[in-house]
Amino acid sequence: MATKENSVAYPTVIQVDPFLTDDPQGLHNRWHPDIPAIATVKPGQVFKVECVDWTGAQIGNNDNSDDIKNVDLTKVHNLSGPVAVEGAEPGDCLVVDILDVTPFEKMPWGYTGIFELENGGGLFAREFNSRACKAIWDLQGVYASSRHIPGVRFAGVSHPGLIGTAPSADLLATWNKREGELIAAHANAVPPVAFPPEPRGAYVGQDLPEHVRAKIAQEGARTIPGREHGGNCDIKNLSKGSRCYFPVFIPGANLSVGDLHFSQGDMSFCGAIEMAGIITFKTSIIKGGVEKFALKQPIFLPSPVDPMYSAKLVFEGISVDYHGDGKQYNMDASVAYKQAALNAIAYLMKAYLLLSAAPIESHVGAIVDSPNACVTLALPLGIFEHDILPKPEGLEKKDFGQCAIRSDGVV
Amino acid sequence: MATKENSVAYPTVIQVDPFLTDDPQGLHNRWHPDIPAIATVKPGQVFKVECVDWTGAQIGNNDNSDDIKNVDLTKVHNLSGPVAVEGAEPGDCLVVDILDVTPFEKMPWGYTGIFELENGGGLFAREFNSRACKAIWDLQGVYASSRHIPGVRFAGVSHPGLIGTAPSADLLATWNKREGELIAAHANAVPPVAFPPEPRGAYVGQDLPEHVRAKIAQEGARTIPGREHGGNCDIKNLSKGSRCYFPVFIPGANLSVGDLHFSQGDMSFCGAIEMAGIITFKTSIIKGGVEKFALKQPIFLPSPVDPMYSAKLVFEGISVDYHGDGKQYNMDASVAYKQAALNAIAYLMKAYLLLSAAPIESHVGAIVDSPNACVTLALPLGIFEHDILPKPEGLEKKDFGQCAIRSDGVV
Amino acid sequence: MATKENSVAYPTVIQVDPFLTDDPQGLHNRWHPDIPAIATVKPGQVFKVECVDWTGAQIGNNDNSDDIKNVDLTKVHNLSGPVAVEGAEPGDCLVVDILDVTPFEKMPWGYTGIFELENGGGLFAREFNSRACKAIWDLQGVYASSRHIPGVRFAGVSHPGLIGTAPSADLLATWNKREGELIAAHANAVPPVAFPPEPRGAYVGQDLPEHVRAKIAQEGARTIPGREHGGNCDIKNLSKGSRCYFPVFIPGANLSVGDLHFSQGDMSFCGAIEMAGIITFKTSIIKGGVEKFALKQPIFLPSPVDPMYSAKLVFEGISVDYHGDGKQYNMDASVAYKQAALNAIAYLMKAYLLLSAAPIESHVGAIVDSPNACVTLALPLGIFEHDILPKPEGLEKKDFGQCAIRSDGVV
Amino acid sequence: MATKENSVAYPTVIQVDPFLTDDPQGLHNRWHPDIPAIATVKPGQVFKVECVDWTGAQIGNNDNSDDIKNVDLTKVHNLSGPVAVEGAEPGDCLVVDILDVTPFEKMPWGYTGIFELENGGGLFAREFNSRACKAIWDLQGVYASSRHIPGVRFAGVSHPGLIGTAPSADLLATWNKREGELIAAHANAVPPVAFPPEPRGAYVGQDLPEHVRAKIAQEGARTIPGREHGGNCDIKNLSKGSRCYFPVFIPGANLSVGDLHFSQGDMSFCGAIEMAGIITFKTSIIKGGVEKFALKQPIFLPSPVDPMYSAKLVFEGISVDYHGDGKQYNMDASVAYKQAALNAIAYLMKAYLLLSAAPIESHVGAIVDSPNACVTLALPLGIFEHDILPKPEGLEKKDFGQCAIRSDGVV
Repeated sequence: MATKENSVAYPTVIQVDPFLTDDPQGLHNRWHPDIPAIATVKPGQVFKVECVDWTGAQIGNNDNSDDIKNVDLTKVHNLSGPVAVEGAEPGDCLVVDILDVTPFEKMPWGYTGIFELENGGGLFAREFNSRACKAIWDLQGVYASSRHIPGVRFAGVSHPGLIGTAPSADLLATWNKREGELIAAHANAVPPVAFPPEPRGAYVGQDLPEHVRAKIAQEGARTIPGREHGGNCDIKNLSKGSRCYFPVFIPGANLSVGDLHFSQGDMSFCGAIEMAGIITFKTSIIKGGVEKFALKQPIFLPSPVDPMYSAKLVFEGISVDYHGDGKQYNMDASVAYKQAALNAIAYLMKAYLLLSAAPIESHVGAIVDSPNACVTLALPLGIFEHDILPKPEGLEKKDFGQCAIRSDGVV
Repeated sequence: MATKENSVAYPTVIQVDPFLTDDPQGLHNRWHPDIPAIATVKPGQVFKVECVDWTGAQIGNNDNSDDIKNVDLTKVHNLSGPVAVEGAEPGDCLVVDILDVTPFEKMPWGYTGIFELENGGGLFAREFNSRACKAIWDLQGVYASSRHIPGVRFAGVSHPGLIGTAPSADLLATWNKREGELIAAHANAVPPVAFPPEPRGAYVGQDLPEHVRAKIAQEGARTIPGREHGGNCDIKNLSKGSRCYFPVFIPGANLSVGDLHFSQGDMSFCGAIEMAGIITFKTSIIKGGVEKFALKQPIFLPSPVDPMYSAKLVFEGISVDYHGDGKQYNMDASVAYKQAALNAIAYLMKAYLLLSAAPIESHVGAIVDSPNACVTLALPLGIFEHDILPKPEGLEKKDFGQCAIRSDGVV
Repeated sequence: MATKENSVAYPTVIQVDPFLTDDPQGLHNRWHPDIPAIATVKPGQVFKVECVDWTGAQIGNNDNSDDIKNVDLTKVHNLSGPVAVEGAEPGDCLVVDILDVTPFEKMPWGYTGIFELENGGGLFAREFNSRACKAIWDLQGVYASSRHIPGVRFAGVSHPGLIGTAPSADLLATWNKREGELIAAHANAVPPVAFPPEPRGAYVGQDLPEHVRAKIAQEGARTIPGREHGGNCDIKNLSKGSRCYFPVFIPGANLSVGDLHFSQGDMSFCGAIEMAGIITFKTSIIKGGVEKFALKQPIFLPSPVDPMYSAKLVFEGISVDYHGDGKQYNMDASVAYKQAALNAIAYLMKAYLLLSAAPIESHVGAIVDSPNACVTLALPLGIFEHDILPKPEGLEKKDFGQCAIRSDGVV
Repeated sequence: MATKENSVAYPTVIQVDPFLTDDPQGLHNRWHPDIPAIATVKPGQVFKVECVDWTGAQIGNNDNSDDIKNVDLTKVHNLSGPVAVEGAEPGDCLVVDILDVTPFEKMPWGYTGIFELENGGGLFAREFNSRACKAIWDLQGVYASSRHIPGVRFAGVSHPGLIGTAPSADLLATWNKREGELIAAHANAVPPVAFPPEPRGAYVGQDLPEHVRAKIAQEGARTIPGREHGGNCDIKNLSKGSRCYFPVFIPGANLSVGDLHFSQGDMSFCGAIEMAGIITFKTSIIKGGVEKFALKQPIFLPSPVDPMYSAKLVFEGISVDYHGDGKQYNMDASVAYKQAALNAIAYLMKAYLLLSAAPIESHVGAIVDSPNACVTLALPLGIFEHDILPKPEGLEKKDFGQCAIRSDGVV
C-alpha cells in the first residue's frame, strides 16, 4: 500500500519567502570565496532550493511600471546558496542535474521588464531611449500568457538565469582586475560597461564576523555578467532536464543559483519571464575534471524536453548599422545581432517585450566573411495565435498589447 | 502508361562545367547592376542552375594542400547568374524556393579548407598562424564522411553559401562607401578588414561592350561579405526546402547563386564542405514587399528537412579572451564566439577542421549582461561514431585524422 | 512589489488524499450520466484536480509485489470528478487544455506493474504466464529512474491515462449492449474479453439517494476501455501541454479524470509509470462542435513539450506469430504489434517491464499488403546509459534489474 | 585542381528504363532462392540501383485513371536485383545503408492510386466500393505537390516500399504453407486474403535454364506482403539515411529492392507517392548477426533527415465500427486504425487520396484495455496551406481536388 511512510519528499535545503521579509536567510548577492556554505549535500542526493526573483520581490503583479523604473539594482541578483557538495575539490568537475524548475504554487506569475536607460538599460536602451515598462505573465502549467501581450502563448523552457560555483580568491582577483581596466577605459559610459565591487547593497543572509562581511562587500564580484564559473549566462537551454559540468574552484564547490526564468529566448536583451520559484538538483563529482575536459567554462547537455516549435521565420542581421547611421562595423557579431532583432521588431511592428520573453533562437551564421558578421534570429510560428507569414496582402497590424507603464505616463 | 512524352525534366537554365574550362559562360564574380541577366524565368516555373565550386575548380580530390595554399582569391566567388524573374520590380519581394541542392553525379566529393594566414585567413588565422590544409569529403547520398577525419559521419544540410539579388547603383555606392571607410580606418590589417572593388580577376562570362565590362570590374562589389541583398551569408538553415524572401533592387531582380555547401555549421570560421553542384529553384513575387515586410535584408522560412540530432554537448564562451591574454572585451559577441569555439577545440583535442564542416549550432545566449556577451556552441553527439560525453576516465585521445597538407611539410 | 495579495494560486476544485482514507470524496469508478458534478467551473478558468493512483493506493513503494498480485480490480479506476463546465450542452465540443500533470510533492514515486494472468492480465499475460511483479520509479523532476531497472533514465511525458466526458443514457446503453454481445460470444475467455457493469466495488464519493447509487452501480460502464467519450485511451501524447476536443453528451459535459501516468510508451501492454498527482486544466466550449468536426471521438493537439529522443532503433512485426506457433493471421495489426514487441524483448534479453514504462513509439506501418499487417516499435536510444546498437561483438547481456516479486517467490 | 580523373561517380550496378521496354534486364517479381544474383558488390562499396515503379510503367502522367482500373497485378512488384554481397552467409546480418533515394531526372513525377475493389482493393475498398482514381504529384526537389490535390505541399520521406533479402528454400516453403492455409480458410474472400504462387506474370529478367525459370514461377512467393526477410513493409521511416539490419538466408544475401516511394504516411491503405527512381546503397556484414540480435525480422535505425512537422492534429479510433454497424471488436487494432482514418477523412471532408500520400503518423495507443484497442492518426499541420484546426466557425469546406478518374465517369 502507498503510505506516508514509504513516500518521502525530497528535502528543501534552502527555503525562502518569495515575498521577501526582513533579513532573509540563505540569500547573497555577490560572488566571493569567503561566503560560507549555508547547506551541504551529498553527491547523488536529490534536493530543492527555493529562490526569490532576481530583484527580491521588488516587482508586483499589477499594471503600473514604477517598480521597474525605481528598481534598486545594487541589491541584485538575489542568489540562493551557497550549497556545498561533499568531496568536491578545486580542479574537479561538478556535475549538476537541473531536474526541475517551477514557480511557487502561491505565486503563479512572472514578469518581463524593460528598464529605464538610466536605471538598468538593456540592449536597445539607447536606441529606444528606454522608459520603464513591464508585462505580467500568467504561468499556467507549461504555458505562459500575458494580459499585456495578447495573441501569444508559449511553453516555457524554465531555467536558472544565474548559476555558478564560487570563485577562488585568485579567480576573483582576475575578474576584478580585468573588469576594472575595462571600466577605466570607458569612464563615463551610460549605461556603464561593467560594474565594480559595490559595498552598498551587498548582502549575505548568514551570521558572519563583521570583517568577513566587510571583505565580501568590498571585494565581491557583482553578479551581472557570466564568467568562467557560469554565473549570469542567461542561456535558455540550461533548462530543466539539462546536465551541467561546472569547474570547481574552492572546496565544496559552493553552488549558488537564482534569477529563475520561466522562459527566455536567445535574444534576452532585456529580460526573460522572471519568476521566483523552486529548483531541484542532483549532483555528482568527476575528479580532476577541469584538466580532463579543458574546462575553461561550464559545458552542458541540453534537456530532451525542449519545446518543439519547428516552423520558424528567420531574420538576418549584418554588422552594418542600417537601422541607424549606416556605419560599417568590422565583423562585429553584436552589431549584427542587434540588426537582426531590429528587423524582427520592425516586421512585427513593435514586439520588443515579446522578443524578450519568447523562445526565439539567435544563431551566429558566420564570423568569417569580412567585414560583415551575420547573425540570424528565428521566430517560432507556433507561439502566435495568428499567421505571421509574409503574404501579398501584407501583415495585419496586430495589437501586441499595452504593457504596464509608469505612473507619470511617460512611454 | 509512363512515357517520355508525359515525363518532362525541369530545364537547366545555366549549365556549367564543374571542371571549368576556359571562358565559362553564365558565371560572374562581382555584384553589379549592369551585369545582364543570362537567363529569364517566369514566376512559378521550376528551374535548375548549375554551379562550380566557389574557387572555380582550383581545389582537387587528393592529399596535398598546395592548391589551398596557392588559391587565387581574386577570382572568387564564382556565381551562376544572374537569372531575371519576369515582372520583378524594385521594391518587390522576390520569393525564392530552394527546392534542392545536390552535387554533380560525376563529382561526388567536396572539401573543407583552412587557408594560409597570408592568403585567405579565417576566424582563427592569427591564433593558430594558419597553414594551408584541407579535408576531402565523400558525399554519399545524404551523408558526408572523410578519409581525413575518421570517426565522423553526418547528414548534410545542403545550401547555397552565397545567394542574392543584384544591387541597384545606389545600393552599390553605399556599400563601396561604407566599406571603403572601414578599410581606410584599418589600413594595414592582416588579414584585411574588407576588400574594395578589384579589377584584377573580375569576370563576367558574357559578351559585353568593353566599357560595361570595365565599369563592372571597376565598381563591382566583392562577393565576400553578406549584405542587404543576401550575398555570402553562409547560413546553414538556408538549405534545400527553405523559402526565402529577397528585396528586389533592379528590374528582374537578377538572382545569382554559388558557393554551394554540402554541409556547414554555424561555426563556419573557415569553410564548410564546399562543392560544385546543382540547385533547383522556384520563384514568385510579392509586389511592394520591401515596404510591407520592412525588408532590410532577406528573411526566410527554414526547411522542414533539417537533419535532427537532438542530443548535443554545449560549450560556452564569454567576451574575455581567456584562451589568449585574458583581456576583457565589452559585450563583444565575436570574442565570445571565438572562446566557445576554442573551448570545443580544446575539449576535442584539435577538431578544427571538423567544426568547419559539421552541423554544429552557435547561439547568442545573451548580449545584455555587461560586460560579458555569452555565446554557446552545440556539438551534435550523433555525428560521432564514439561517445564524446564527459566521463570519469576522461576523453580518449581520438585521431580525427591527418588533413591533407602542404608539399613543403609545413603544418 | 510582489505580495501575497497580488499572487493568487489556482484553485484546486477536487482534493484527495493519495494515501486514500475511508470514503474519499470526489472519486468515482464507473461512467454514468447520473453521477452529479462535484464541482463546477467556468470556461476560461484555470483549476486543479487531484487524483489518487488508478488503484486507489493499493500499491506500495517497496520491493514486494504481493500488492500487485492481490490487487482488487473491481475498484478501478479511481476517477476524480465529475467537473461540470458552465454552458456546455450536448452536441458541443469541450476544449480541454491539459496545462500540467505532476506527482504530489509528498509522493515523488510511481510504479509499473505486471499483473497475474488470473488477476489483471495484460498483452502478454498468456504468452509469459504472467506472475505479479513491479518496478518502483523515483520521479526526480522531469526524469524517472528505477532501482529495479538500472541503466535507464528518461524524461516523462506525463498525462492522464483516463479522461472523458460523461456519456448520455443512450450512449451508455449502446456501450452496454455491444460489449454485452462480445462477452456473450466469448463466454469463458481468460482474461475476459470485456467487463460488464459490476455493482460489486462500484463507488461514488458523494451523498446520493440510494436508488441513484444503485442505478449507477447497476448500469455504470466499467472504466477499462476507451470509448467515444475518451476514457481509458492510454495515449501518451495526451500529455501536459496538449489541447483536447471532447464531444459533450450531457449538460455540463461532466469531465472526469484519473489514472495519471508519469510516462508511458505506445506499447502500454501492461502499465505505464502509474502515479497519484495533480492535473491542471483550462476549458472552453465550441458550440455545436460535434457536428462541425464530425466528432465521433476526441481529437487533440499534442503538446510542444514532448521529450525529444531523435535516435531510435526500430523493430518490425508482421501478422504471423513467429514467436509462437508460426500461424498466419489475416492483416491483424494486434498480432503484428505483439511480434514487434517480442522482437524488442528478445533483442534486449527481457526488458518487458522497461517497455511498459519507457517512451517508445509504435507505428502502424501498413495494413494493406495482404495478408501481413506490419507494425513497428521504436526504442529511443537516449534513454539508455549504454550503447544498445547492433555491433559485431553482439550485445552485452545487461542486467535490467530484478523487479519486485511475490512473497511466495513465484516468478 | 578538380578534374574528371579525381572525381569518380558511384557505379550503377543495375540500370533500367523507367519507361520499360521489352524484356528488361535486372528485374524480377517473385521471391525465390534460385534467382541468381545479377550483380555482386563488396562490403563497403557505394553503389546505385535503378528501379522502375512498382507496376512497371503501367501508370501515366495524365488525368485519366483507366490505367489504374486495368492495372495488371500479376506482374507486380517489379524488383531490381538480386544484388549479392561478397562474404554474406546464412545466419549473418546484412547491414544496408540506404544513402539516397531519388526520382529519375527525366521523370520528376509520381502518383497515388486508389484501386478498384475488384482489382487491387485497399484498406477501405469495401467501405467505399472503391473505383479507380489517381493523383499525379510533381516532385520538385524535396517537395511534392499535385494538381489533383491543391492546397497541400510536403517534403518527401523517400524510401523503398519493398526491400528484402532472398529467402532460403526452407523459409520459402514455410511462407507458402502458412499462407496457403490462410487462403484455404477464406476461400472466396474479395479482395483475397493472400496470394499464392502464380506462374502467370512471373518474370525474371535473366537468361535462365527453362526448368529453373519454371520452378521460380511455380514456387516463388508473391511480393505483396512483408515477411521475415523484409519485403513489402511500406515503412515510411526506412527512408534515405536509414541503416537497416537484414537477416541473411542464402549465400550472398541477394538483396532486391523496388516499389520506391517519394513519400508515404503510416496510413498507407492504398498507396504512397509511387515513383521510378534510383537508390544508393552501402553494405556491410555482421557475422552470425541473426543469433546475436535475435533477428526474426529486419531492424533499423531511422534517418536523421526525417522532415519535421511538429504541430499535429490527432484523431483516435477504437475497435468499434462506429462508422459502420457499431459492432464491438475484441482488441482489434486493425479496426481501430480504420476508425481513426475514417475520423480524419470525415473531419477533412474526403481527403482519402491525401492520407495515402502525406507523411501522417499512426500510433498504436494501447492494446491492453479490453475490449477496445486504441489507435491514433496524426496529421501534420505544416503540410496544409490553410489552417485546419478546430474553430468556432467550423471548418471551411476545402476542395482537395478532383483526382484523375475513369474514362467511363464512374466515381
